[in-house]
Amino acid sequence: MPSFERRVPEGDDRERMICADCGHIDYQNPKVIVGTVVALGGKVLMCRRAIEPRRGFWTLPAGYLELGETLEEGAAREAMEEATAAISLDGILGVFSVARIGQVQVIFRGRFTNPDRPQFACGPESLDVALFDWDEIPWTEVAFPTVHWALNAWNACRSGPPGVPAGNPPTDPRGVHGIGPVPKVE
Amino acid sequence: MPSFERRVPEGDDRERMICADCGHIDYQNPKVIVGTVVALGGKVLMCRRAIEPRRGFWTLPAGYLELGETLEEGAAREAMEEATAAISLDGILGVFSVARIGQVQVIFRGRFTNPDRPQFACGPESLDVALFDWDEIPWTEVAFPTVHWALNAWNACRSGPPGVPAGNPPTDPRGVHGIGPVPKVE
Repeated sequence: MPSFERRVPEGDDRERMICADCGHIDYQNPKVIVGTVVALGGKVLMCRRAIEPRRGFWTLPAGYLELGETLEEGAAREAMEEATAAISLDGILGVFSVARIGQVQVIFRGRFTNPDRPQFACGPESLDVALFDWDEIPWTEVAFPTVHWALNAWNACRSGPPGVPAGNPPTDPRGVHGIGPVPKVE
Repeated sequence: MPSFERRVPEGDDRERMICADCGHIDYQNPKVIVGTVVALGGKVLMCRRAIEPRRGFWTLPAGYLELGETLEEGAAREAMEEATAAISLDGILGVFSVARIGQVQVIFRGRFTNPDRPQFACGPESLDVALFDWDEIPWTEVAFPTVHWALNAWNACRSGPPGVPAGNPPTDPRGVHGIGPVPKVE
């Protein structure tokens, strides 16, 4: 029956929740969202959310990374849970920071493991699952800004080399990855 | 004075710590380590750890991402805390999963913000801070495997385009990003 108090631990500079009995520090840190743009023949797999937040809006198969998983395992699990889809991954499309809500998002590019017989259906957290051509994506019903960012990153490479992962867009400069090329100093 | 019990919440499939009084679920998820290979004229900045684990061994300026930070802000903060170095970032070198200890690591490439007068010194968590040529790196005293992975990713690009971020090496296949190019199906 732990009793927690909020104070700055010795040697730290932030308040943490600390157990008054045993001194255990319950660090709260950002969480990792992992997801995938699963593509097939120029179409992308999207899920209509059956849960809040943004119930009824469209998203990518994605969710919280769990303890014990690699990013790749988490992405594949989410595609299975939300769209019953067996997928393979082939690179990272985006690495996004959503600092306001304490999230880091890592979005992969993927494909159906059996592209000749792609299988997908609603998992318990989805109202609908569908493949959309780029021009068919229900843009006004997209659940989160990061879904736009990830789709744009996919559209920039499609089935070509994924290249440098996208970061937050310039309109959100705190999460932009770079400042341009490093000057050649060697 | 919360009293927590460990059980599987409704609609979930994993045990979580749940407050018996209010039903609050204390999700425990992997944490994000963010760090930087800060390079100057072919040398890289490393810090000798003053804290456990691996006290006395050499690492990169890196640490836990904090709530409210973007990845970039966390990487810059760690370089300041551990090496009193003001840095700028220009891309992601590696995205690693260390599932055994519940970590995701995002490692940037960086430079001193003022490369003409690079400034660095020991922060409270460092015993020593130094710039090393590749052949001078104390390889047998490197703190963690991911430091090797990040340094190798830097050495593969140096000051050229960072390209696709490294994942875990093939010897650790659960965290390898890709399965090769996506077949052209469009």
